[in-house]
Amino acid sequence: MAVSDYLALIVMAIAAWSQYRCYFLQEELSRCSEKEELGNKVVSQSEIQEHLDDGEEDPQIVDRRLLAGGSSVWCSGSNNTDRMCQFHNLCFSQKHKEFVFLSGSKSIAFGLPENPFDPALVDLSSVPNHNTQYFGFSHLPVAALEDTNTVAVFRGKHLLMNRFNPSNIMHVFHDDLLPLFYTMLQSGLMAKGDFKPTARLVFLDGYPAGEFMDLYASLFNYRPILRDEITSDSDSADQDSLVCFEEAFVGLSNVTTWYQYGFQVPQGPVPNTLLTAREVRVFTSFVRNQMGARRCEASDDYIVLIKRESTRLILNEMDLVTLVAQGTGLRVLTAGLEDYPIKDLIELVSCSKVLIGMHGSLLILSMFLPVGSMLLELFPYAINPDYYTPYKTLVQLPGMGVAYRSWRNWSPDRSVGHPDALPAHGGIRHLSRQEQKQILTSQEVPQHLCCSNPDWLYRIYQDTAVDIPSILNLLSEGLQECQQSRTEIAPHFPVFPSKVGGIHCDRVKGLRVSWQRPWNIEYMNTNEVRYELWTQETDGDDYKAYILQLEGYTFSEGYEDSKSYRVWVRCLVGSIKGPFSSVVC
Amino acid sequence: MAVSDYLALIVMAIAAWSQYRCYFLQEELSRCSEKEELGNKVVSQSEIQEHLDDGEEDPQIVDRRLLAGGSSVWCSGSNNTDRMCQFHNLCFSQKHKEFVFLSGSKSIAFGLPENPFDPALVDLSSVPNHNTQYFGFSHLPVAALEDTNTVAVFRGKHLLMNRFNPSNIMHVFHDDLLPLFYTMLQSGLMAKGDFKPTARLVFLDGYPAGEFMDLYASLFNYRPILRDEITSDSDSADQDSLVCFEEAFVGLSNVTTWYQYGFQVPQGPVPNTLLTAREVRVFTSFVRNQMGARRCEASDDYIVLIKRESTRLILNEMDLVTLVAQGTGLRVLTAGLEDYPIKDLIELVSCSKVLIGMHGSLLILSMFLPVGSMLLELFPYAINPDYYTPYKTLVQLPGMGVAYRSWRNWSPDRSVGHPDALPAHGGIRHLSRQEQKQILTSQEVPQHLCCSNPDWLYRIYQDTAVDIPSILNLLSEGLQECQQSRTEIAPHFPVFPSKVGGIHCDRVKGLRVSWQRPWNIEYMNTNEVRYELWTQETDGDDYKAYILQLEGYTFSEGYEDSKSYRVWVRCLVGSIKGPFSSVVC
Repeated sequence: MAVSDYLALIVMAIAAWSQYRCYFLQEELSRCSEKEELGNKVVSQSEIQEHLDDGEEDPQIVDRRLLAGGSSVWCSGSNNTDRMCQFHNLCFSQKHKEFVFLSGSKSIAFGLPENPFDPALVDLSSVPNHNTQYFGFSHLPVAALEDTNTVAVFRGKHLLMNRFNPSNIMHVFHDDLLPLFYTMLQSGLMAKGDFKPTARLVFLDGYPAGEFMDLYASLFNYRPILRDEITSDSDSADQDSLVCFEEAFVGLSNVTTWYQYGFQVPQGPVPNTLLTAREVRVFTSFVRNQMGARRCEASDDYIVLIKRESTRLILNEMDLVTLVAQGTGLRVLTAGLEDYPIKDLIELVSCSKVLIGMHGSLLILSMFLPVGSMLLELFPYAINPDYYTPYKTLVQLPGMGVAYRSWRNWSPDRSVGHPDALPAHGGIRHLSRQEQKQILTSQEVPQHLCCSNPDWLYRIYQDTAVDIPSILNLLSEGLQECQQSRTEIAPHFPVFPSKVGGIHCDRVKGLRVSWQRPWNIEYMNTNEVRYELWTQETDGDDYKAYILQLEGYTFSEGYEDSKSYRVWVRCLVGSIKGPFSSVVC
Repeated sequence: MAVSDYLALIVMAIAAWSQYRCYFLQEELSRCSEKEELGNKVVSQSEIQEHLDDGEEDPQIVDRRLLAGGSSVWCSGSNNTDRMCQFHNLCFSQKHKEFVFLSGSKSIAFGLPENPFDPALVDLSSVPNHNTQYFGFSHLPVAALEDTNTVAVFRGKHLLMNRFNPSNIMHVFHDDLLPLFYTMLQSGLMAKGDFKPTARLVFLDGYPAGEFMDLYASLFNYRPILRDEITSDSDSADQDSLVCFEEAFVGLSNVTTWYQYGFQVPQGPVPNTLLTAREVRVFTSFVRNQMGARRCEASDDYIVLIKRESTRLILNEMDLVTLVAQGTGLRVLTAGLEDYPIKDLIELVSCSKVLIGMHGSLLILSMFLPVGSMLLELFPYAINPDYYTPYKTLVQLPGMGVAYRSWRNWSPDRSVGHPDALPAHGGIRHLSRQEQKQILTSQEVPQHLCCSNPDWLYRIYQDTAVDIPSILNLLSEGLQECQQSRTEIAPHFPVFPSKVGGIHCDRVKGLRVSWQRPWNIEYMNTNEVRYELWTQETDGDDYKAYILQLEGYTFSEGYEDSKSYRVWVRCLVGSIKGPFSSVVC
């Protein structure tokens, strides 16, 4: 990539990011007071298994001889978005506010790119190629460590990452928790049998702990370390201290992300995501297990209606609850983050028959909906449901077994906008009269980039008096569909035939080769079986190739009785190729 | 790669491999009796730390519900030679003699190539792309497991691999032990601080335990499992049993290999190997540590002469020992595998001043030679030392600090050939009279492919009466050189500048930007420091780029006082680029 190319990307990303931050500014501001309390942030002890070894709980001032051999690093992957790096003795310099690699006599480095700043070594977040998420480090000879430096080493394994937007539960699950689970599995930071995490999280994003800290902590068993805890400002600038991690894995895998937020093209599903229902279910089952959630029971015949307290309201919520209960014969529970801790919401949704809500972050809980349930997503006036599909994409992943319906308010009369609100909450008074008019009269928000399109913000923050009869229709449709839902999960990996068996050669007339079908073909549900056969003179380089339909063939021409031949055979199932077997004839 | 391409490769590799096997046939045959004793193979208990958890020591017949969720796999890398895969519940079917992936409701697969048999998923050996080293597996739905199947599961972590040639100590170190060490470090199977292995080795090569089994076992703490132990033939063919591994890492990294054996081009150094003295020293220090080896002492002033018992003899060995001792004033110890266990040889060489020997596998121990020592390699008549350089390449890796000299017998009179020996040991009586004559009269073996060139075999198996005066000269030269040897190990990774500090902007006249040198530049020993600077209108897309020599510059033209600009600066050291810092002006 030429310098000019990626610089342009950086510029775009910076612009988009600064807008994105504005979008959440309000929430951020309200939580700033937490920042001061960080040092004392207490995570419920009963929910978190602390480090097995108490000695690992806190960094220790240690003899710097521990670092004497220097740092080491191993990376795999070909660019910053798919690279994973693991370090030994990765340190953070409090004076320079940079990570440093201590070059020492035992320093090993494999897999580093030639230039780790083109544009970055590793993305700290699963959101790819975003310039606020870049990780890099500087070099320092280990001999340059002064005697007066203080050194603290966190022993054991750590996973260093950025939360992308820790105040939004949709982002928490999509960008952080699901990627964390699969990153840990892939990096050997979690036992693959019982999913027991063995690494401590380190959040480098600089955000305060946030309201979902308990969720990270209880899923991954250790209290995460926040950036503030390793970048203490209390040291004088002359006195450098190092905070080091004995083992540090850096970066989050993005193989499970299914949605992109519109930084470069309008938001939408990630093309060719590798995620299927299988990965979602393995993850949600892990989450429920870590939470000690109860099993669902037959009596769990209820609908969960996501309630919002202050914005994007359902104006006729009470009527909706009553009539949906009447119309479906199911109980309707309303729930939101104001009433329930997130863990209770997860447990509630996990056993529910239907999840209903206005388009919004809590609908991410639809990943917990059981097979045979339904998600009904409601959209305010002038918002096209086809353009905003993080939840639809999720529940429609192959094999999820969850019906999806969206309801869209087509009637401006049933909509209440808030032109006087703050711009981040859909206010438009800061715009010119003409711009305001254009927004107020448009019938659909055109597709747009993230994150501060005022047209989108105005419309998405409208309150809505929903049309209950059409919602009842959609519910009825969806409930019928989900009763029939099958959950055969097509694996996203190729399934291939085994070797052919009993390959046998007969030289009576020409060359007769026979074999048996691969032993696992009976499990492949296919009748597209063919065979690829190659022959070669044992002492020569010439070979011939054939595609055959049956488990044997006699080659009468072109083969001499006096010569010996090597024959390879493999099975083809459609375009999928099995391994070769061979025999000398 | 087209089918025809890799098939050609396979054909070549098969041909080369079958020749290679012949080369070692003699040794193999003499060890066949071991095969029967395998089940009872006892590895010295005092040297091996058994599994921490006794319950993991042996596979257990288990409830097959352990496998009910199916297998999972994660691979990274782009082809079979650089790919690493890790499995959960990887099973071996005794009936079908294939590894199987149990497709179940919890099966996860990330990073599989579209066709794992083009030509293979993973190389089991560090010797790349060799068709005897290919790993693949078949699929089986977990539901297809019959009730009558017996299932044994090895709990915990395992590393599955092929030894390439376990009867040859050069191959053991180059192909297996060194790659194992770095594969384990990279795969999280070994703590990066204290190098404590946490995985058990599984050798799929099918060779018997072999004389170096103790070495594998004591370095990696567990008794390795042999292929025979998981492919028992005692079960009836109708009754399938599965042997499964709870966690299986498959494949050996080849990043540390430095020599290729001439399968496709004549043997020689691996081009652009990533190995430096640093990786060798970290490994040998690990080996010595695991063996509990003593520290070297000042009194260790001796030469080790590698002795061969039956082939490639030094005919005047006694004179050589006496005169070298006289000429150098150092003790001369003769040692070979017949007299010493390999561990004692390692300890001996680790503290020696000089290692002398005829070209042969024990010279691999030169990796243990201390800094400031010397390797003197002797070659029989008509063998060009420049064509056979595994040991020279090793000790001349950047930073090894070991002097190298080779001595070549130029005189046919000092050479005794063995034309009547077995072909694998240099006999030529199976050849035509003319071929024999050609070999006997040639003055140098031309470069050739592996592994059964009779010219090479005849010459390399000659005994030699070495020329002691010229050897004393080489010793004197080498000892002088190695006293001066420096051991500054140039790291094989790029060292780059940190961010520029204190970037500052002044808008008094035009645009004045200043900054400080990167804080780590003082450690980089360079005076090639330049800066790359980019400016962009905050609200625009146009940017300008500059390369500057100093830590500041005033741009007087082209910048408007009314506009704000974003400025990026980074440091360039030669072609190495640091990270950007930015400021808004």
